[in-house]
Amino acid sequence: MPESFSQMASSDSFSQIASSLASIARGFYLRGWLVGTSGNLSAVVDREPLRLAMSPSGVDKGELRAEQILIIAEDARVISEHRTKPSDESPLHLRIVKELGAGAVIHTHSIWNTILSDLHAADGGVAIEGYEMLKGLQGVNTHEHREWLPIIENSQDMLALADSIGNTLEKHNDAHGFLLRRHGLYCWGSDLSQAKRHVEILEFLLEAVGRTLLIKDGE
Amino acid sequence: MPESFSQMASSDSFSQIASSLASIARGFYLRGWLVGTSGNLSAVVDREPLRLAMSPSGVDKGELRAEQILIIAEDARVISEHRTKPSDESPLHLRIVKELGAGAVIHTHSIWNTILSDLHAADGGVAIEGYEMLKGLQGVNTHEHREWLPIIENSQDMLALADSIGNTLEKHNDAHGFLLRRHGLYCWGSDLSQAKRHVEILEFLLEAVGRTLLIKDGE
Amino acid sequence: MPESFSQMASSDSFSQIASSLASIARGFYLRGWLVGTSGNLSAVVDREPLRLAMSPSGVDKGELRAEQILIIAEDARVISEHRTKPSDESPLHLRIVKELGAGAVIHTHSIWNTILSDLHAADGGVAIEGYEMLKGLQGVNTHEHREWLPIIENSQDMLALADSIGNTLEKHNDAHGFLLRRHGLYCWGSDLSQAKRHVEILEFLLEAVGRTLLIKDGE
Amino acid sequence: MPESFSQMASSDSFSQIASSLASIARGFYLRGWLVGTSGNLSAVVDREPLRLAMSPSGVDKGELRAEQILIIAEDARVISEHRTKPSDESPLHLRIVKELGAGAVIHTHSIWNTILSDLHAADGGVAIEGYEMLKGLQGVNTHEHREWLPIIENSQDMLALADSIGNTLEKHNDAHGFLLRRHGLYCWGSDLSQAKRHVEILEFLLEAVGRTLLIKDGE
Repeated sequence: MPESFSQMASSDSFSQIASSLASIARGFYLRGWLVGTSGNLSAVVDREPLRLAMSPSGVDKGELRAEQILIIAEDARVISEHRTKPSDESPLHLRIVKELGAGAVIHTHSIWNTILSDLHAADGGVAIEGYEMLKGLQGVNTHEHREWLPIIENSQDMLALADSIGNTLEKHNDAHGFLLRRHGLYCWGSDLSQAKRHVEILEFLLEAVGRTLLIKDGE
Repeated sequence: MPESFSQMASSDSFSQIASSLASIARGFYLRGWLVGTSGNLSAVVDREPLRLAMSPSGVDKGELRAEQILIIAEDARVISEHRTKPSDESPLHLRIVKELGAGAVIHTHSIWNTILSDLHAADGGVAIEGYEMLKGLQGVNTHEHREWLPIIENSQDMLALADSIGNTLEKHNDAHGFLLRRHGLYCWGSDLSQAKRHVEILEFLLEAVGRTLLIKDGE
Repeated sequence: MPESFSQMASSDSFSQIASSLASIARGFYLRGWLVGTSGNLSAVVDREPLRLAMSPSGVDKGELRAEQILIIAEDARVISEHRTKPSDESPLHLRIVKELGAGAVIHTHSIWNTILSDLHAADGGVAIEGYEMLKGLQGVNTHEHREWLPIIENSQDMLALADSIGNTLEKHNDAHGFLLRRHGLYCWGSDLSQAKRHVEILEFLLEAVGRTLLIKDGE
Repeated sequence: MPESFSQMASSDSFSQIASSLASIARGFYLRGWLVGTSGNLSAVVDREPLRLAMSPSGVDKGELRAEQILIIAEDARVISEHRTKPSDESPLHLRIVKELGAGAVIHTHSIWNTILSDLHAADGGVAIEGYEMLKGLQGVNTHEHREWLPIIENSQDMLALADSIGNTLEKHNDAHGFLLRRHGLYCWGSDLSQAKRHVEILEFLLEAVGRTLLIKDGE
């Protein structure tokens, strides 16, 4: 996997990446997954040394433009000539990129990921099983797959949270995303379009699982 | 019916068909029925020999362009000069076209079609009855119609699945669509605009039926 | 009221009316209230003799253009040089225009109007009471208003249905709309923008009432 | 806080403010938060004497243009050369601006704010607690925050209502918004983009809280 990631990084230019990143952000804002300046997106620009295209902190995702996308280094310092700060959750993006060799990371706040991250917190995760849509996740070839979406307790200590995430990803190294409790969904992929696909797949499945609960509860 | 279909095929040019197909895909993506590269669309370009305009495999339906639409033959081989693969579910489209003489086939993955395809799986289908919207289905002239939407067990064996579909369509030859369990909805029509209308009608009715269940359950 | 309506009719040109009508249709299609070619819209162009701008039968409301809008006479005959048929429900529009002196009529098929038209059919209507949004209905000045939205049994006999509507409107002459059971909502206003406002107000209130039922049911 | 507000007022020109205000209105209309001409928006243009950019009464928010935005004085009189009236709820906006030194006020009518404003009326407010999204509210730095959204009984007497609001804001001076019962949400911020963010955050949280109730009820 790492090989294909570094090929991606060298072939795509930063301006293309920044433009895709802003376009995905505007689309997901309209779906209600990045409202109130919530959520953040990143993509690897270079591996050696690590350079990450990253959405700035506190911006309206519905109006995000390519020119606003920062480049940050492995320590989350801004490398590009911007005066804005990168997202506070940059350490989490960097951890996922390093831990998994991912090429892009997208973090959304949706109604259904928020609700399910709380409802199943005591179980430590949500099991999603038997849906054709699971095949949209990289490496899954059948609906008979059982996806485990780990739930991690939320925290304002970004370094501690990065460590929790590191531990969780070690234990569940076949996961395609995880939930932060009452916070949101983290997804990744080999590049931005795969990360986008994974967000859409997991958001769809969380909504399907959540709405099924409503019907099952009533019976 | 076959007569009008072949007239359609000869009068509409491929570029018009490809352009409509891409436009319908982008609209349905925004409604959340084709997210995560799911779903696929096709339309008959020629009957003798059979030529089908088909959406490519694994593309983002929110960005589908007419130039990406493939032409495939009766054996699902790509005839046009594209290097992309057609949708994996092309054999299902071809089977529906041949079995019913349909001019277009659309397959969507929506929240409500996914939920109801599972909830009513044991019944073998969903009965939809008494709604004015049923009149949007070809040949239905009154809300007193009872539409039976068969549910077929999902499978990754496309040829076996095509056979199940063939058997189901023989038994229910007045159906306007069917559900694959925990997978999605298949719809067709004499041409793309009729197939689009059928999708919108059935998705509407499935949502109405599903939400009514929520209220009825609670009572 | 009739005075102001005929002033409207003479001051607004047909092309402005047709353009507004098409634009409202496209917007309501996106909200899911006119999918599958369902629903229809009309506006008075002239009173003496009666001339009604009317959406054609069986068109995709998401692509409706001003040039497609027909002009029909009091007997629903097409006056303009179009070869398309007017909506099958034109007699209902004409009845509402004549009975109430309305300047525009809009008929939508939404999920919530469909569900509530069935759920409260035995009561003969839905009472909506105590909401600030009621003030969006012409002549209502306080949220303490009680709006009665009559429910009429659906029928495929358009003339019988027009008579049921006539009787209902005589009994409830302060209504701003009515529901056809398992069919949809009819709304009107002195002109198209008022009719549009009434649709948005009643669709909002039906959704609020419907979703409140879900919570109340569970308690 | 007042210092930064008056700096904002002098640096932003009226035309920029009017243009942002119209753009936010059109976006929120599409989300269904300002339908049927409901809701209203304002922003401070000058502090001494007080000048407020204000949306006009009874306009379709989906078509609001910058040229339609009025300027009103402290007594709600129109200062700009418009013949339209300002929103009836202008006294409420003026009260919030004066009471809190806010730079912008946005009032929305959404399904979820309407439902929760009624469901929790007897409690006098809605408590929202433990969500990461709370950090989108000015001055909130942790998800462990408990936000109290007061609910005020609705009234058609705007001056009495302004007084109720004044009393409520004195008691809950750390609130970021309040609900009017069966009416809607009022939000504010130091400028329009902060007020917009607060609306998106609170609407998201109200929907999350409301939908969680549905699941909890059924259990």
